[in-house]
Amino acid sequence: MNDVIKLLQSHRSIRKFTDQEIPRELLLSLIKAGQAAATSSHVQAYTVINVKDSANREKIAEYAGGQGYVASSAVFLVFCADMKRPTEASERTGANVERGMTEQLLVATVDTALMAQNVAVAAESEGLGICYIGGIRNNPQAISELLHLPDHVYPVFGMCLGYPAHNPEVKPRLPVEAILKEDVYCDDTEQVEAFDSTMQAYYQARSTGNKTTDWSHNLTPLFDSKLRPHMRDFLVKRGFEMK
Amino acid sequence: MNDVIKLLQSHRSIRKFTDQEIPRELLLSLIKAGQAAATSSHVQAYTVINVKDSANREKIAEYAGGQGYVASSAVFLVFCADMKRPTEASERTGANVERGMTEQLLVATVDTALMAQNVAVAAESEGLGICYIGGIRNNPQAISELLHLPDHVYPVFGMCLGYPAHNPEVKPRLPVEAILKEDVYCDDTEQVEAFDSTMQAYYQARSTGNKTTDWSHNLTPLFDSKLRPHMRDFLVKRGFEMK
Repeated sequence: MNDVIKLLQSHRSIRKFTDQEIPRELLLSLIKAGQAAATSSHVQAYTVINVKDSANREKIAEYAGGQGYVASSAVFLVFCADMKRPTEASERTGANVERGMTEQLLVATVDTALMAQNVAVAAESEGLGICYIGGIRNNPQAISELLHLPDHVYPVFGMCLGYPAHNPEVKPRLPVEAILKEDVYCDDTEQVEAFDSTMQAYYQARSTGNKTTDWSHNLTPLFDSKLRPHMRDFLVKRGFEMK
Repeated sequence: MNDVIKLLQSHRSIRKFTDQEIPRELLLSLIKAGQAAATSSHVQAYTVINVKDSANREKIAEYAGGQGYVASSAVFLVFCADMKRPTEASERTGANVERGMTEQLLVATVDTALMAQNVAVAAESEGLGICYIGGIRNNPQAISELLHLPDHVYPVFGMCLGYPAHNPEVKPRLPVEAILKEDVYCDDTEQVEAFDSTMQAYYQARSTGNKTTDWSHNLTPLFDSKLRPHMRDFLVKRGFEMK
């Protein structure tokens, strides 16, 4: 296993940070590393907002469900899928552009995620810790207003970055045999059940926040009809009409 | 700039590969590195299909718009957003699950992209070249049938992997000042116009496939109403109803 793969394998979310700041030059280097990721048709359909305003950081921490590290991390970035820039660039060439296609939502969301993951890897290679904040989708409309996001731009997730002040365990993942299949999709219930035992042991043994649950039980909130049911209307209102 | 950031910065799509095979152990190591990426609520909403069947590889190359390297690369993977596994795991615990929420589509799509980007970085760290294949969304229904994908699983993109047989230039990216904004969104037309000049010079000078165009002109197909207008109906039919 080479050093890069070791680095990738050592990822865990960091939620406690020291006071050490991230130099501007380093932040720019991380974003540029993000931009180097593959992008569909070279569209680069993303914008990153570096939220420095402390009042806004506090508000976003609250919207994200009381995640204090959104306010206290050295840097907090909001990764936005941005179809405004390329749409308008295309329009300036005289093209007749069609907005709001489902395909465009996918392209922009994937582009943003690929870019962000490069930022995460680059950050970790520099000794920083990171934590993705999907919780910004709890109240994406309020956050869009705070950040003055225009139509055709939506906040996909946030990311806290800073120097780690704790050292949590790496969380186990599903058996690779469940994830990688040959030629055709096949059932993996058996591997999931084995993984439930793995996760039960992990949750009981981990150094902080130990509890009695397993992977399958832990998923319940994700399938609750109350998990962010506003996302559809929000996206439509922002011009991602999913046509 | 450390070696990891240099690696990230050196990415370019590879579309010509040598005959050298990728050992099974290395492929597993890449997928495991992918799985180590952050995942929303630990859901790991993805499945990767390793397409080995050569007739299927040929068909997918055709569907993707005649991209022959889909058939000729050492390995071709289809990265699928998979909400079936976690939904059914949750149901087995007795939870009442709600399917087809827009939020779930986003979670699964983002999870898949973060995972794939780790695979890409791991592969490049081992001297492999990769190319994302968004073109599998040209005909996602036919590809889903070929790979026996069940409902609540959709093919997001493919990836060719192999040892490079060419050495294309790294493609320029938008100025970081356009991508990274402070506190609020702001206009970046000026940077886009500068980038159009950069790209015009790049397309004229590059070693193969040089042409007279720029970034903005090159975007036209993406906003054509004919770019994959089937995606909405396809996703709904597969159980991603975007409720």
